Amino acid sequence: MNITAFIGSSRAHSNSEHLTDVVLEGITYKKLYLKDLHIEPINDLRHDAHGFQLVEDDYDQVIEALLTSDLVVFATPIYWYSMSGIMKNMVDRFSQAIRDERFPQLKEKLTATEAIVLAVGGDNPTVKALPMIQQFQYIFDFIKMPFTFYIIGEGNKPGDIANDKQALAQAAILNKQLKARTL
Amino acid sequence: MNITAFIGSSRAHSNSEHLTDVVLEGITYKKLYLKDLHIEPINDLRHDAHGFQLVEDDYDQVIEALLTSDLVVFATPIYWYSMSGIMKNMVDRFSQAIRDERFPQLKEKLTATEAIVLAVGGDNPTVKALPMIQQFQYIFDFIKMPFTFYIIGEGNKPGDIANDKQALAQAAILNKQLKARTL
Amino acid sequence: MNITAFIGSSRAHSNSEHLTDVVLEGITYKKLYLKDLHIEPINDLRHDAHGFQLVEDDYDQVIEALLTSDLVVFATPIYWYSMSGIMKNMVDRFSQAIRDERFPQLKEKLTATEAIVLAVGGDNPTVKALPMIQQFQYIFDFIKMPFTFYIIGEGNKPGDIANDKQALAQAAILNKQLKARTL
Amino acid sequence: MNITAFIGSSRAHSNSEHLTDVVLEGITYKKLYLKDLHIEPINDLRHDAHGFQLVEDDYDQVIEALLTSDLVVFATPIYWYSMSGIMKNMVDRFSQAIRDERFPQLKEKLTATEAIVLAVGGDNPTVKALPMIQQFQYIFDFIKMPFTFYIIGEGNKPGDIANDKQALAQAAILNKQLKARTL
Repeated sequence: MNITAFIGSSRAHSNSEHLTDVVLEGITYKKLYLKDLHIEPINDLRHDAHGFQLVEDDYDQVIEALLTSDLVVFATPIYWYSMSGIMKNMVDRFSQAIRDERFPQLKEKLTATEAIVLAVGGDNPTVKALPMIQQFQYIFDFIKMPFTFYIIGEGNKPGDIANDKQALAQAAILNKQLKARTL
Repeated sequence: MNITAFIGSSRAHSNSEHLTDVVLEGITYKKLYLKDLHIEPINDLRHDAHGFQLVEDDYDQVIEALLTSDLVVFATPIYWYSMSGIMKNMVDRFSQAIRDERFPQLKEKLTATEAIVLAVGGDNPTVKALPMIQQFQYIFDFIKMPFTFYIIGEGNKPGDIANDKQALAQAAILNKQLKARTL
Repeated sequence: MNITAFIGSSRAHSNSEHLTDVVLEGITYKKLYLKDLHIEPINDLRHDAHGFQLVEDDYDQVIEALLTSDLVVFATPIYWYSMSGIMKNMVDRFSQAIRDERFPQLKEKLTATEAIVLAVGGDNPTVKALPMIQQFQYIFDFIKMPFTFYIIGEGNKPGDIANDKQALAQAAILNKQLKARTL
Repeated sequence: MNITAFIGSSRAHSNSEHLTDVVLEGITYKKLYLKDLHIEPINDLRHDAHGFQLVEDDYDQVIEALLTSDLVVFATPIYWYSMSGIMKNMVDRFSQAIRDERFPQLKEKLTATEAIVLAVGGDNPTVKALPMIQQFQYIFDFIKMPFTFYIIGEGNKPGDIANDKQALAQAAILNKQLKARTL
C-alpha cells in the first residue's frame, strides 16, 4: 500500500505531523511538506476561452502523489477553524488538476484513493473543527475519494499533542488497522 | 461609515464581486482585490523564541483597511466548500496581525468593525456552504467582530449570479439598510 | 400540485405557520397541525423478530399526506436549535412508515415529493439553525426527497416574523415561483 | 460526584446505553430511561399572559436529576441524524423548567453541571451526526452547562457498538478519567 501524507503546517515538527507519525508508525510512507513547496493559488479559468494554463510551480508533485498513492493523509493544523491556507491552495488546485490533459487518469484514480484527515488545533477543536470535517466530506464526495477516518487533536504549543490521550488512542488503533492492511 | 470589501476571487468581475456591487450600490466603499496583492501564508511563530518576524508583502494594506473601516465585506467565491485559498491566507495572517506591535490598536478596533460575508458557489451552496458560514462565525467570535449578515448566492459561470433572484433580493434589502445607515 | 404543510409549533398562529402562509399565499394547500395529532414516538423494532407493530395513533394522516402531496412543507419553530420535538417524533416514525406493508408505494412516492423547510427561531437563527438545515438535507437524502428550498426567519414573540424583512422577501419570491408552477 | 444518565433510546439494552455502561463502568450512577417516563411535548407559553402551566407528567424526575447531579450524560441513539424524539421533547421542556418557580435554583445549578453526550447511529455517524454535536454545544452554551466530552459510536443492530473499537477506546479513557475524579 503506497501512502503519502500532505503536511499542511507552517511549522517544522508540528503537532499535526506528530499525530501523523503516530498513525503511520512502523509503516512506510512519504511526506510532502506543503510549506516547502511552491504552490500557486488557483486561477479559475474553467470558463475562460482558453481554459486553464500550465502553472510553473511544484504542484505536479501533489498530482504525482495522488496518482501513486493508495492512501493519502491530509495532516493540517487547524488555523481559524479550518485547514491551513497552504493546504487550501493545494485543494483549490484540484479544480485544475482534474481537468489537466497531461493526467487523464487522475479522476478515475482518485475514486480508489483513500483519504484520512488528521487535524490539530487549540480552541475546542473537537467541536469547532467539525465544520472543517464536513467540508472535507464534501470535497471527497465531489472527487469520489473514500473518506475513511479522521482524528481531531488538541494542541497549541509544539508538542502539545502528546498530552491528548484521546487523539493518541484513536491514532494507535488506526495505526494497528493500517498495519494489518499493509502486511 | 467607512467600508472595505475584500474581494477573494481569482477572476475579474467575479460573481462574488458582482454580489458585493449590488449590496453596496450607491454607497462609497473601497475594494481590495486579494488576487492583486502579494500575501504570504502565515508562518506560525507564536511559540518561537523570537515571535513573529516582519513579513515583506502587501499585508499592511489589509491591516490598514481593518483599522480604518467601520464595516468590512468578505466577498469570496466558494472554492471546495469554503473561502478561496487567497482569502484563507489573508485570514490566517490575523494571528500575526493581532500580535503586531506596530498596530497595538487593532484588536480593540476589530470589536467595533462589522463583518458581512458574501459568497457565491456552484454546488448547492445554500446547504454545502453552511460549514463555511459557521467557520466565519467562529472567526468573528474569536476576534469579537460583530457578524451581522451573510448572503450565499449560486453561480458558476461569470454572470450567473444575475439569475439568483433570492440572493439578489437579499442583497437589495441589505443595500437599503446600509444606505439608511450611511446617510 | 398537491401541497401539505406540516405545522410543527406548539402555538396557534405561530411565526413558522405565518411564514408558511406567506410562502403559500394564494395557493391551495392543506395544513396538518402536529400539535393536534396524537403521534407516538418511534419504537425501534427494526431488528425485532416480529418487526414493527401497528401503532394506534394519528400517524396514518402523515403517511396519507406524504402519499398524496407533490410538495410538503416542514414548518417548524426552532426549539433548542432544531425542529420541535413533536416534529422530530413525526420524522422518527419515517423509519417505520417506509417499512409499513400497508403502504408499499411510499418509498417510491417520496422520491418524487419535493420538500421545503420553513423555520423560525430567536437566538441568531441564520447561524445557529444551520446544523438543523444540514440534518434536514441528510434526512431528505436518505429518503431521496428533493430538498428544494429553505427559509430561516427570526422571531420570538407571536407576530415577530412580520419584522423579518429578509425572510419575508425570500418567502415572497418563493411564493411567486410556486404560483407559476401551480397554474 | 453524583451522576445521572438520560437514556434516550426506545430499545432496552440499546447501543447508546451500552456505551454509557462502558463510560461509567465501576462508577455509581443513576439511569433515567426516557422511554419509561411520560413526558409531554413543550407547550410554548413563554409569551402567554398566564405563562407556563403546571404539566402533570414525569418531568419533575428530569429536573430532580439535574438538580442533584454533578454530571449528566445524554445517551441517545442517532435517529435521523439527531437525538431521539423523546430526548428532544425532554430538552424542549428546558424552556419551561428554567422558568419554573418551584425550582428557582435550577438555572444557577446547571452552570455547575457537566454534560457529556454519548450517541450511537448507523449511517456514517462520525460525519453525519456532527450537526447534532454542534446543536448540543449551542444548547449547553445557552444554559451555560460545561460540555466536556462526546463520543459518537457506530451501530445499528443491538450489540453492534461492541465492534466499534474507536468508540470503545474513547469510552475506556473517559472512564479512567471519571474514575480518577470520583475517588
